[in-house]
Amino acid sequence: MRIHVINPNSTASMTDQIARAAEAARSEGSVIEAETATGTPASIEGYSDEAMAVPAMLAAIRAADKRGASAHVIACFDDPGLAAAREVASGPVIGICQAAVQVAVTVATRFSVITTLPRSVPVIEDLVAHYGATSRCRRVRAVDLPVLALEADPATARAKLLAEARAAIREDGVDAIVLGCAGMAELCAWLSREAGVPVIDGVTAAVKLAEALASGGFRTSKTGAYAYPRDKSSDRLASGSTG
Amino acid sequence: MRIHVINPNSTASMTDQIARAAEAARSEGSVIEAETATGTPASIEGYSDEAMAVPAMLAAIRAADKRGASAHVIACFDDPGLAAAREVASGPVIGICQAAVQVAVTVATRFSVITTLPRSVPVIEDLVAHYGATSRCRRVRAVDLPVLALEADPATARAKLLAEARAAIREDGVDAIVLGCAGMAELCAWLSREAGVPVIDGVTAAVKLAEALASGGFRTSKTGAYAYPRDKSSDRLASGSTG
Amino acid sequence: MRIHVINPNSTASMTDQIARAAEAARSEGSVIEAETATGTPASIEGYSDEAMAVPAMLAAIRAADKRGASAHVIACFDDPGLAAAREVASGPVIGICQAAVQVAVTVATRFSVITTLPRSVPVIEDLVAHYGATSRCRRVRAVDLPVLALEADPATARAKLLAEARAAIREDGVDAIVLGCAGMAELCAWLSREAGVPVIDGVTAAVKLAEALASGGFRTSKTGAYAYPRDKSSDRLASGSTG
Amino acid sequence: MRIHVINPNSTASMTDQIARAAEAARSEGSVIEAETATGTPASIEGYSDEAMAVPAMLAAIRAADKRGASAHVIACFDDPGLAAAREVASGPVIGICQAAVQVAVTVATRFSVITTLPRSVPVIEDLVAHYGATSRCRRVRAVDLPVLALEADPATARAKLLAEARAAIREDGVDAIVLGCAGMAELCAWLSREAGVPVIDGVTAAVKLAEALASGGFRTSKTGAYAYPRDKSSDRLASGSTG
Amino acid sequence: MRIHVINPNSTASMTDQIARAAEAARSEGSVIEAETATGTPASIEGYSDEAMAVPAMLAAIRAADKRGASAHVIACFDDPGLAAAREVASGPVIGICQAAVQVAVTVATRFSVITTLPRSVPVIEDLVAHYGATSRCRRVRAVDLPVLALEADPATARAKLLAEARAAIREDGVDAIVLGCAGMAELCAWLSREAGVPVIDGVTAAVKLAEALASGGFRTSKTGAYAYPRDKSSDRLASGSTG
Amino acid sequence: MRIHVINPNSTASMTDQIARAAEAARSEGSVIEAETATGTPASIEGYSDEAMAVPAMLAAIRAADKRGASAHVIACFDDPGLAAAREVASGPVIGICQAAVQVAVTVATRFSVITTLPRSVPVIEDLVAHYGATSRCRRVRAVDLPVLALEADPATARAKLLAEARAAIREDGVDAIVLGCAGMAELCAWLSREAGVPVIDGVTAAVKLAEALASGGFRTSKTGAYAYPRDKSSDRLASGSTG
Repeated sequence: MRIHVINPNSTASMTDQIARAAEAARSEGSVIEAETATGTPASIEGYSDEAMAVPAMLAAIRAADKRGASAHVIACFDDPGLAAAREVASGPVIGICQAAVQVAVTVATRFSVITTLPRSVPVIEDLVAHYGATSRCRRVRAVDLPVLALEADPATARAKLLAEARAAIREDGVDAIVLGCAGMAELCAWLSREAGVPVIDGVTAAVKLAEALASGGFRTSKTGAYAYPRDKSSDRLASGSTG
Repeated sequence: MRIHVINPNSTASMTDQIARAAEAARSEGSVIEAETATGTPASIEGYSDEAMAVPAMLAAIRAADKRGASAHVIACFDDPGLAAAREVASGPVIGICQAAVQVAVTVATRFSVITTLPRSVPVIEDLVAHYGATSRCRRVRAVDLPVLALEADPATARAKLLAEARAAIREDGVDAIVLGCAGMAELCAWLSREAGVPVIDGVTAAVKLAEALASGGFRTSKTGAYAYPRDKSSDRLASGSTG
Repeated sequence: MRIHVINPNSTASMTDQIARAAEAARSEGSVIEAETATGTPASIEGYSDEAMAVPAMLAAIRAADKRGASAHVIACFDDPGLAAAREVASGPVIGICQAAVQVAVTVATRFSVITTLPRSVPVIEDLVAHYGATSRCRRVRAVDLPVLALEADPATARAKLLAEARAAIREDGVDAIVLGCAGMAELCAWLSREAGVPVIDGVTAAVKLAEALASGGFRTSKTGAYAYPRDKSSDRLASGSTG
Repeated sequence: MRIHVINPNSTASMTDQIARAAEAARSEGSVIEAETATGTPASIEGYSDEAMAVPAMLAAIRAADKRGASAHVIACFDDPGLAAAREVASGPVIGICQAAVQVAVTVATRFSVITTLPRSVPVIEDLVAHYGATSRCRRVRAVDLPVLALEADPATARAKLLAEARAAIREDGVDAIVLGCAGMAELCAWLSREAGVPVIDGVTAAVKLAEALASGGFRTSKTGAYAYPRDKSSDRLASGSTG
Repeated sequence: MRIHVINPNSTASMTDQIARAAEAARSEGSVIEAETATGTPASIEGYSDEAMAVPAMLAAIRAADKRGASAHVIACFDDPGLAAAREVASGPVIGICQAAVQVAVTVATRFSVITTLPRSVPVIEDLVAHYGATSRCRRVRAVDLPVLALEADPATARAKLLAEARAAIREDGVDAIVLGCAGMAELCAWLSREAGVPVIDGVTAAVKLAEALASGGFRTSKTGAYAYPRDKSSDRLASGSTG
Repeated sequence: MRIHVINPNSTASMTDQIARAAEAARSEGSVIEAETATGTPASIEGYSDEAMAVPAMLAAIRAADKRGASAHVIACFDDPGLAAAREVASGPVIGICQAAVQVAVTVATRFSVITTLPRSVPVIEDLVAHYGATSRCRRVRAVDLPVLALEADPATARAKLLAEARAAIREDGVDAIVLGCAGMAELCAWLSREAGVPVIDGVTAAVKLAEALASGGFRTSKTGAYAYPRDKSSDRLASGSTG
């Protein structure tokens, strides 16, 4: 099985961390193909970053799908372009937010998400709502650090993350924490030990679900809104000269 | 007041129709600046068409905002890139789906949407849900014609549209119809006469709301998730050598 | 265009303030016809105040509609009698709560409402839910001052309003504030400057949307639940002597 | 126990029918005080009929509450003025729609409502949603007869009601029917026998719940939004001369 | 009327308290048949306690139904086995949580629930959601005492309950409190006096609703998902030898 | 990895079919431990069948967990006792309905469920709602055959299943079908070929997700409502003599 993991932003060191988390998560027999998108923003911190990253990401997914990838993981917690990716791929496409939410509602009764910047809070709240998990998600919290600061200043990141996790347990009454950024993947095991509750990293969750769906023979439906984009070259010709 | 109307697809004749509808709708004193996006799909028929159209559309909106546009209208019923556009603009940004829904819930108790292709049905249903109008929208219907066929084969388009509108009134019990494609704008008055209920065209609705918000002094909030994208050039430097 | 603005309560000085806000908001070419309801409660502070105000308000709307008003604004944040008013009017009828909510979800991602008395909190929460904006509205807050105290003791009103707005930004994480009482209209610009986020006054929002709908040719649907009330004088006769 | 049953419309023969249903439903020891509102519409068929009926209805409830009524039943399926009535009463106030819905979700898994005119369908759908029962209510159906025709032409009413009930069972898959008009009360037992499922009449349901709440010592809370209306006579004086 | 009240746990002293509350609530002419389930957990504090209690509880309900009970009350706030009980009974079956919620939304606009252990909070939140009252219920709170400690250490229980009720009024802004455990029934009147708002005990609410439904002639529908369990003894025979 | 698959009903031939589907789905290196519950109903067709099956099922899960099972699958589409099972297990517990829904929302935009008996329709609708997928699930359909007839009369089962699947595609506009009964597992591949859309079998989905969660190191949270049941033996003693 070949799991294609695409980092939609253009920061290679972040792809490296994602790849390490994916490698640690993969089953024997799976191959992780981690890839950095080209010409996209250095980090995804809002709607326009997402929008600017998606076309290059779709090209990478389309290419990997043609090369025979078994499944695709979009390694950004905003799940940018997830529906579009499902249109261009035949294998299953997993977003790390959706994957983390599916795992969270399976192993816990209530969870909170901890993300980077406050501006991502409504983005993630809306995603969680779209995935039908609003009643299970107590709160989306932010440590108020840019995505790249997770890597640039890990000591601060760890301290803020742990403080926020403890606040979530104490104030929100949750029995699990979801990490709201792909760049937090390597802090997962440490945070779980410190906080004393399951901490769910979306990269790990997504790699496992990607393997599960691919090996279970589940593929993206091509008869509805996830069908391949139409070829429109003959739309006018077909309709004739009445236009 | 200058209302910037961007057609995210690259079909100029469709922009022409949209511009005519916008011109007909504008108030005295408003100027319509209609624009066709460059290098985007010929029509927006699904998630990846949307995704491929958004970066060029955002560039156009950003430029128009700098030139002093009072407000922006995204003239595609999928409201592609609406949140991202609000991030890059200072003036209000109106999506024609959101505008049509806001008008529909003001003048009617229940409505149905009629769009082009069946693959757009879940796209629009999810938008309507995101706008909080699920309980007001009885059904999203499709005439099963490609977007460009509306223009290429208008006789068929009219016949199918009227049949579907009558079915909506009879079967769904609605007191208004929303046109689910920017390319249907010029059929609005005719369809309303034939069907006997208000028919809401999103281009008209959006132009009027754009004028309303702009002249009312309402501008996009820049303190939350619609703040301008961050400049990330110094993210690593600022964090020092700990990275 | 003639915009009929009805204050459902009987306090003329409040109508004056509403009229000044409406005048400031109107477009060139629009005429504001502000009117105080007759024989209604001095302020609308709860469900029975609403109920007692509606019949006189409907009479005023019916009369204005006959005189040729282009649209109607109900200038009370509880939107009392909004659906009933749509039944008796042919032009569009705008409630200031619904208008403010429609503007808020267009220019911001999350908002809080600030109203007068705590007893109005559930009233407004239920309205916001009915308008489909629950997930966008973080909280409905109250300054705990009667409606008429806004006018009678403006210094206290300003201080409490600003404190509550700052609490909303800090605790609720909102990027916009909605003023939850028509009597707060003239504090809008000041509060927005002080609080540093868009502050949305429903009277302004409603006047702009009323103009937008009227000049866009949108009128209340008369084929469904907003149809004119039936004439029942012959119900029994028509049914014959079997009753 | 004295159960005050107010018919908000002004048709005395309909009050008679309601009173008979209430008498049949009451427990030994209860007294039914049925009353017709004065100067209200002949039937409640929409939002403005509701609005015009509520002030007189509130006056009747207030008076009955002072006379010592144990509880109040609003005998119109639109539950007009229910929240306002709770403000002016100390005893519990029961709406026949809310009561019927509470009974329906207790004795059945899915129900449909059958009302009179199609224009009442969205009114009742919104009520059912407000009562949190949308997922339990399959459909609101209308026999397309005016309220007063139920009495004037009972043969037609019975035939249409039975046809609609059978359609609800067959098409909606429901295991109970709710009668969506106070004027249908006396057809309840007959319809249940003919249709073969429980048929719930709101008048009966409301009388039983009114007795239950009154004898259980439950009274309307007076500390929140159902508190008595404020006396505003001193609002300006109390605030001093700054106004 | 004979009201069968089943305590699903096996603690007889708790049944005694429930029986006293039910006796105090019953109408003249009603007989309370209180019963302790046999071989079930000593208290219901979570999902598996519920599951282990239900079979014995269903046997008790089935037997009481055969003996002619008019209605059944499940006297545990988790409403364990409520749907299953409706399958095996012909009379109405009332859960004390559902009953308390129905009363709360009738007499108040917003309520909070106070239960025993924090682990019951998501259980009750999900129940309240299932009953459609999420928007009315501000918060489910826990005093952090085991169920049996209510009886074993009443002084602590009272102090914690009152503190939590006052916090609910102050922080949640509620106008009613719902007691979230059958073992709190006898503290109801005292807590209401101390807290100054209506306090709703589910046992009382359920007994009153059980009487109401039974005397109103409402019985559990037997044509849908609450039909009696099928006899499957001939399923294979009937299908013949093809299996 | 050892995946414990428990069939909550007592029909061994059905366990055999489930075991074959699980074997076909498992990854190399996984071991399927399929087990039939003892003393439970022959099939699960409603709420009381569920309730009667759960205690024995919990005992089996508890025992398998102690023997070192990596994860547990509850092989009945009603997901009976799912939350209770999570309380008594340390490994993840997967219900086949929840698993199928999670796969369906990943590979398709809209799905319908096809189950056996009409009485299971509301049961499954409520489950789908609890899992947050109501807006994705167009309809729950029933072939109107008992569970055991799937095995006893496979020809009829196939014909009815295919007819219903085609109706779902045509009438509901879905791009995937979910099989609503564990006993349909072996018809999955055939039905998908015939119907032309992905058909999702819950047993396969659940085995794959069980492997994914177990190998990803995700375990059931033990700090919230899924904590192990409390030992209550000392509840009264601990509280001392004040009781």
